[in-house]
Amino acid sequence: MQSSRYDILFEPITLGPVTAPNRFYQVPHCTGMGWHRPKTLAAMRGIKAEGGWGVVCTEYCSVHESTDDGYYPYARLWNDEDIRANALMTDAVHEHGALAGVELCIGGNYVANTDSRVPTLGMISRPSTNVDLPHPFQCRRLDKEDIRNVRKWQRDAAKRAIEAGFDIVYVYATHGYLLSEFLSATINTRTDEYGGSLENRTRLVRELIAETRDAIGDKAALAVRFAADLSDPETYDAFAMMADMPDLWDLTVHDYGIEMGASRFVKESALENSIAKAKSMTSKPVAAVGRFTSPDTMARVVLGGVQDMIGAARPSIADPFLPVKIREGRPEDIRECIGCNICYAHNSLGVPIRCTQNPTMGEEHRKGWHPERIATVSKAERVLVVGAGPAGLEAARALGQRGYDVMLAEASRDLGGRVTQESKLPGLSEWARVRDWRVGQIEKMTNVEIFRESRLGASDVLSVGADRVLVATGASWTVDGIGRHRDTPVPRTDDATVVSADTVLSGGDLPDGPVLIHDDDHYYLAAVLALALRQRGIDVTYMTPGGRPASWTRYTNEQCATIKSLADAGVTVLTNRLIDRVERDHVVSHCVLTGTDIPVAADWVIPLTRREAHEALFRDIEAAMTTSGPGAPKSVQRIGDCDAPGIIATAVYSGYKAAVEL
Amino acid sequence: MQSSRYDILFEPITLGPVTAPNRFYQVPHCTGMGWHRPKTLAAMRGIKAEGGWGVVCTEYCSVHESTDDGYYPYARLWNDEDIRANALMTDAVHEHGALAGVELCIGGNYVANTDSRVPTLGMISRPSTNVDLPHPFQCRRLDKEDIRNVRKWQRDAAKRAIEAGFDIVYVYATHGYLLSEFLSATINTRTDEYGGSLENRTRLVRELIAETRDAIGDKAALAVRFAADLSDPETYDAFAMMADMPDLWDLTVHDYGIEMGASRFVKESALENSIAKAKSMTSKPVAAVGRFTSPDTMARVVLGGVQDMIGAARPSIADPFLPVKIREGRPEDIRECIGCNICYAHNSLGVPIRCTQNPTMGEEHRKGWHPERIATVSKAERVLVVGAGPAGLEAARALGQRGYDVMLAEASRDLGGRVTQESKLPGLSEWARVRDWRVGQIEKMTNVEIFRESRLGASDVLSVGADRVLVATGASWTVDGIGRHRDTPVPRTDDATVVSADTVLSGGDLPDGPVLIHDDDHYYLAAVLALALRQRGIDVTYMTPGGRPASWTRYTNEQCATIKSLADAGVTVLTNRLIDRVERDHVVSHCVLTGTDIPVAADWVIPLTRREAHEALFRDIEAAMTTSGPGAPKSVQRIGDCDAPGIIATAVYSGYKAAVEL
Repeated sequence: MQSSRYDILFEPITLGPVTAPNRFYQVPHCTGMGWHRPKTLAAMRGIKAEGGWGVVCTEYCSVHESTDDGYYPYARLWNDEDIRANALMTDAVHEHGALAGVELCIGGNYVANTDSRVPTLGMISRPSTNVDLPHPFQCRRLDKEDIRNVRKWQRDAAKRAIEAGFDIVYVYATHGYLLSEFLSATINTRTDEYGGSLENRTRLVRELIAETRDAIGDKAALAVRFAADLSDPETYDAFAMMADMPDLWDLTVHDYGIEMGASRFVKESALENSIAKAKSMTSKPVAAVGRFTSPDTMARVVLGGVQDMIGAARPSIADPFLPVKIREGRPEDIRECIGCNICYAHNSLGVPIRCTQNPTMGEEHRKGWHPERIATVSKAERVLVVGAGPAGLEAARALGQRGYDVMLAEASRDLGGRVTQESKLPGLSEWARVRDWRVGQIEKMTNVEIFRESRLGASDVLSVGADRVLVATGASWTVDGIGRHRDTPVPRTDDATVVSADTVLSGGDLPDGPVLIHDDDHYYLAAVLALALRQRGIDVTYMTPGGRPASWTRYTNEQCATIKSLADAGVTVLTNRLIDRVERDHVVSHCVLTGTDIPVAADWVIPLTRREAHEALFRDIEAAMTTSGPGAPKSVQRIGDCDAPGIIATAVYSGYKAAVEL
Repeated sequence: MQSSRYDILFEPITLGPVTAPNRFYQVPHCTGMGWHRPKTLAAMRGIKAEGGWGVVCTEYCSVHESTDDGYYPYARLWNDEDIRANALMTDAVHEHGALAGVELCIGGNYVANTDSRVPTLGMISRPSTNVDLPHPFQCRRLDKEDIRNVRKWQRDAAKRAIEAGFDIVYVYATHGYLLSEFLSATINTRTDEYGGSLENRTRLVRELIAETRDAIGDKAALAVRFAADLSDPETYDAFAMMADMPDLWDLTVHDYGIEMGASRFVKESALENSIAKAKSMTSKPVAAVGRFTSPDTMARVVLGGVQDMIGAARPSIADPFLPVKIREGRPEDIRECIGCNICYAHNSLGVPIRCTQNPTMGEEHRKGWHPERIATVSKAERVLVVGAGPAGLEAARALGQRGYDVMLAEASRDLGGRVTQESKLPGLSEWARVRDWRVGQIEKMTNVEIFRESRLGASDVLSVGADRVLVATGASWTVDGIGRHRDTPVPRTDDATVVSADTVLSGGDLPDGPVLIHDDDHYYLAAVLALALRQRGIDVTYMTPGGRPASWTRYTNEQCATIKSLADAGVTVLTNRLIDRVERDHVVSHCVLTGTDIPVAADWVIPLTRREAHEALFRDIEAAMTTSGPGAPKSVQRIGDCDAPGIIATAVYSGYKAAVEL
């Protein structure tokens, strides 16, 4: 390796009794795997270590049945039987020379114990503070005996963590879990030695640090995850009290919407100022996240004294081999996280996480997929991929990697399909990385040729002499209004104006006057289009049959910011209203709460209710193949939105899967 | 057994090649267990068979990875490896002489395949019709090859079902899954032999019947689950085409909100008229549900030709031994389902189901609990239970069953606590069964004595000579407004009027004028109180920070009916509004969508945001015990709402758990 400005990132660093081989620190992050799927989890974490992450942590790990997050998958060290499952993970991490960390979690009133069915414990008795799951049960106000138990649970779990082979053991003092309640001047209303003064409010954190130290001795480093936040000066006073107590700090800020903000709202290294101040107050190493994907930024924050280690969750999901690629001097190969948070969404949905950029994420064990390696073919067949959107690009790239002889035909001048269109919308510029990385990889390959402005018919497809054909022609938003909440088209008068979302996306001419956007899609696009049209000075009403705008974005943790952005932009928001019919200058909406029909003024309407696959070419090829002779392709298949319209992650996955299974 | 009017319920019945020993038919129902927890599932189903159910079915069982319901637990027969898990269940059922049934499911566009990640299949390409989870992915419009695959998947899964030991194999033609889409005149827009005429629309059902018959031969009976609904006459035309094709029918109606309606809205045997008509059209046995808990109703519908078998899901959850109790001539021992749907809620939350009436439900394997049997004690200690709400009653009952010498002290004249109060509210009368069954059981016991109007202080408790004390003193709704969405009390002016929900529940005097009910509880009570106050002629505004009223009732499948009931009663509904402060004649609400403060006129306010445990007695006893001498109890513990305020099911569970673990 040549010396470079990134060398600092590869310097080992001492963390108490252990040493991390470099500065790449995969912080604890959810996976949708947890105690339900230990092999799936271990395989994924092992690949991170293989990809060069010097520290790889497991997700939040419950110490006791009173921290049970129900269907959200989480790791467990409740008893000795749980050690074996965790050891699968540490073995996989150690195999590649990395350190394994475990974030011991005491859930407090943020969890609900729906599975274990024991009462949760909180500062006062109140419903769970997880507003996404408004369970009608309350925690118990914890008393002194409960506090003694909490200390014992942490200590016992820390001992088990050592047995399981962890090298770093956490005290977890943020993110709304129990210790957050103690630290808060607002929530902590105790009048004993655990409430009142800051010293009292930090007492339990310090006690847990002591219990943990006692349990792990010099067998592992002790980390504390903590929020140090310029918007809350007292956090630095608390930090000062504990600055040199742990072996390292894993620092963040209060607002989870910033810590793991979607790229629509939060950019790289957003926590920098808050972290730098804390770093200046401690002699211990500091790790912190910031959705770092740029080696220059990473080197800058380490050299600049902001932090010692590059914390990462999402960037390590998008590219488990990010450190190796920097070390090998090929940063252009980094598959940069686009900040869509589709990973987080699937954890919240109780299934293994996935990634828009990395289709192998979550499939390392189940399918044996690897983010960098793929089976090559000895005898290269010739494959035609029709359409260079996310599915087509990924299929062409992966087939190229496998050694196939690939032709990628795109009807337009532009590669990227919907990704290219959508990345021009407010806040979505980073989504272009889905296209750019794939185009960059393909351009390095001699066996993949791109043909732009090449709209193919079935006869063209059959005449190019391809052994295999993948059709990735995408999908378009319909104007019929059929969707989740309607089985039949929305009636409209002849003088009504209904415009497809694709007209906006493709930069087509738009009607005059106020517009109503009807969102039965519930993800980001309707809200983003509303913002785009407001930027053009158009009066916009956003209407949805959902109870809140963009319901599904609560899974990607961007619903609050989305709602605020609509309000800030002056978009009129109507909820619980289903589109019933469209007339010249208004829409009739049906209130799902009252059953009444309410007119809403609008000169034109954009319904986001469903997309229709462009499957005509596929059908034409199928038909033509039944009559074609020798030289016809051996197979033709649809991929991506042309198969089943979905999210970008689905399209990339579909393209990769078709390539790896061809 | 003496002959009785219930004898008909115990007559065997031939179902094609197999014979059910009686007429008690546990229909397929969700459990929150599924393929994730096969041992938990098998233990629970086995106990149903032990309790006398002649047929015990497993839950919806996916035939292929294209039917994957994500985090909702379901059974699977995707491949031969899945046979073993299902055989655990059939073995447990056969052990008690019952038949085991399996409902093979083809999910269509109601599932989302978030785990398997293959495209779903539907009639047209559109988002999943499960509106509770607005996933932004669409199904693929299925083509002829897909239909051929569906037939093969059903056939292959049916063969595996035989291998797994099932005696009844289903074709599942309702509940919004794929076959529902084919049957629907609205949704089925196909123009080939599977669309258009009713004969065409029923074709795939008939083909799957044929495939299944072919696969199972005479080794098992073939059942079809189907909706025959008087509100949709065409369903009988479809039924007529297939009337004698299966060996039995498992019939229901279109509206799931009726089929499994909460008792607030739907009463026993609600499907009767629709079922009776279909029954008159077939020579094959008919099973149908109706939340049957009354043996008289059961005998009447069988003798009256409505149906041949008493289908049940919820009544078999509330009392797995319902058939045995009828057979043994002790119907008063039946633990009747109260129709709260808390079972269904927990399946939707991805954890094993529980039951308000039956605290052992879901714990048969994990804790080894049994609904009828409990470990007895040889040397009877003396236990004082303070408080006769649901926790106290259940603890006293279970302790009595264990052989303890129990004193149950209740401060008021009335037993039942919150159950008694709430059962007087609109629609909740059946909830009194929680009290009535327990009181009835206790009255049979000579070792449990009830003391009414016995409010005890700590010195009273210590003086009665109890070895153990359980404190079950309940909880009250606060007026501070602290809750899920607020950490601090709601400010109010001195002339503002804020009333606890308990004042309404206990029949106290209420202020004059319009009221605002603020619902940060999100379950049933705020809406039910709104209806109760409307019945008194009071103007009611229901306000919630949630996007829709009573958000959590979507898990209990009563949100739609709740919203409609509010509209019908003339309650003004405001959503997405958080209470900010209270003044003399209005409340200031904070709109969570726009951030603006909006006044709402109201002369008084009832906040439902949290309850405070009545823990004073417990604390006094604890304090007194430190100074008391010999004769003091060996232990004192809190149970139920006094420990952590929750739902009634939590209180009953807490009481049972304390009793079984004492």
